[in-house]
Amino acid sequence: MYDTIIVGGGPAGLTAALYALRAKKKIVMIERMIPGGQVAKTLTVENYPGFESISGFDLANKMYEQVTKLGLEIIYSDILEYDITGSIKKIKTHNGTFEAKTILLCLGAFAVQLEVENEKKFIGKGISYCATCDGNFFKDKTVAVVGGGSSSIEDTLYLYDIAKKIYIINRRDKFICEEEPLNKIKTLSNSDNSKIEIILNSVITSLNGDDKLENITVKNKNDNTLKELKIDGLFVTIGRKPDTELLKNTLNLDDIGYILTDENMKTNIDGVFAAGDVRHKTLRQIVTACADGAIASMSINNYISTLK
Amino acid sequence: MYDTIIVGGGPAGLTAALYALRAKKKIVMIERMIPGGQVAKTLTVENYPGFESISGFDLANKMYEQVTKLGLEIIYSDILEYDITGSIKKIKTHNGTFEAKTILLCLGAFAVQLEVENEKKFIGKGISYCATCDGNFFKDKTVAVVGGGSSSIEDTLYLYDIAKKIYIINRRDKFICEEEPLNKIKTLSNSDNSKIEIILNSVITSLNGDDKLENITVKNKNDNTLKELKIDGLFVTIGRKPDTELLKNTLNLDDIGYILTDENMKTNIDGVFAAGDVRHKTLRQIVTACADGAIASMSINNYISTLK
Repeated sequence: MYDTIIVGGGPAGLTAALYALRAKKKIVMIERMIPGGQVAKTLTVENYPGFESISGFDLANKMYEQVTKLGLEIIYSDILEYDITGSIKKIKTHNGTFEAKTILLCLGAFAVQLEVENEKKFIGKGISYCATCDGNFFKDKTVAVVGGGSSSIEDTLYLYDIAKKIYIINRRDKFICEEEPLNKIKTLSNSDNSKIEIILNSVITSLNGDDKLENITVKNKNDNTLKELKIDGLFVTIGRKPDTELLKNTLNLDDIGYILTDENMKTNIDGVFAAGDVRHKTLRQIVTACADGAIASMSINNYISTLK
Repeated sequence: MYDTIIVGGGPAGLTAALYALRAKKKIVMIERMIPGGQVAKTLTVENYPGFESISGFDLANKMYEQVTKLGLEIIYSDILEYDITGSIKKIKTHNGTFEAKTILLCLGAFAVQLEVENEKKFIGKGISYCATCDGNFFKDKTVAVVGGGSSSIEDTLYLYDIAKKIYIINRRDKFICEEEPLNKIKTLSNSDNSKIEIILNSVITSLNGDDKLENITVKNKNDNTLKELKIDGLFVTIGRKPDTELLKNTLNLDDIGYILTDENMKTNIDGVFAAGDVRHKTLRQIVTACADGAIASMSINNYISTLK
């Protein structure tokens, strides 16, 4: 019987493990692919405090090594079944069923992809799914933001002080987001020589370039005209999704599927906690995922100390 | 006119600066002593993800260098006066008055000291103010926890799986804390050969040792008897206090003086944000302070983007 099963080995899970192992708890981590989560697949990280510039793979590996040296037990498997409503939590994997007093869900969230040819090829080479993470690499460059929600508007405003020129490409004829930032965008795009150009009713039909993204083709859905835009960077903001399908009948989730927790990372079920990108929250960054993991671990310690 | 004045250069302030500078905001940091805050004075840090073991000074310095290279402007001064209720925020220092659209308060919090001779000498050499930070250095050792509140009880439970023996020294005849963890402590301390020994109505009168803390003298306040305890570590948990005296008539604070914010780090005053240990929150760690700073910076960006 473990104190905690940590599901997912990204920054949230690894930090929770760090805190749990230092507190001498008996834990096991179940990871589907490789430790580090999305970070491990990130080309360069420059916004994690303490590292001026580091590859995501190296940062993930440092975090992983740190907990490995404390004796982390890790199982590589998908989760086949969650049975977590009772006082003993059970998780079924390809390597058997694990039992614990508590569960910490660090399942992450994945950016929805455009599903246009060459997209994978240009990730980290012009295509990004996070302006806050990668915007700084496009100082005085021309970029496009694709999407029609509040992330697209926020990312455009974020990029406004950085980039030379920003196209916003929206497949609809309007944006679905709060009024105030949208008004700001409209005012900015209506000024002379505006940095911002809004392209409505349009979709990206091709991504072109040799080693890196150089231009995109945009199709107007009303008249089917094609336009080519020369850009250095494309920020894809058409949504993110957590992988919480197996939990939807058990846990309180928001409309998108993110797990609802309180500020101590507790879900609606006793002994079940969630941390990192999978959680309903405002900002999804490496350092905020780590903080979630630390807080979750302390909450779990406190929870366990009250068990009979 | 700055976009933001960041008051305090600990992990929260430095991370906020990192995010603000990457977003090309115009910021200035005002720091009283040296960047890094309490971290810079911490001997060894082993619970910040990405660094297996690093001196607090080095970690603080890495975070500071990272923002220096992005062009951080830093002013060394105490704050003489806050004028932050209007739309233009003004902060008076020894180096003049600074004006900005927003203020981020990263003032930290300081552990209340015992005020017993030799206390400063043994900090990091047996005396600690944070079990979560330093508990792991006392595996299978004898430690004492001094204090009568919930931190003392939580720290004792935290140390229970780590240390060989734990004395809890409380100047009162009872603990002021939640019932459940306290019951757990009572049950544990009543068992045979218990690791935990509760010493009530007692204060520490001397801290003894050569290079490091070796034993303490404890006086019973009822009968004035003295007892000597041989210990390897002493965890002082008699309270923490933020330095928010100048803000008490302006901001909503909790009973101790911590600043109340929402989860996006907003205070009760428009354009005034708080992050890190100064904030009313559950867990005060380096990584949670950093996360606060990142979130505050994003909230500030969003706030500025809605200004006329």
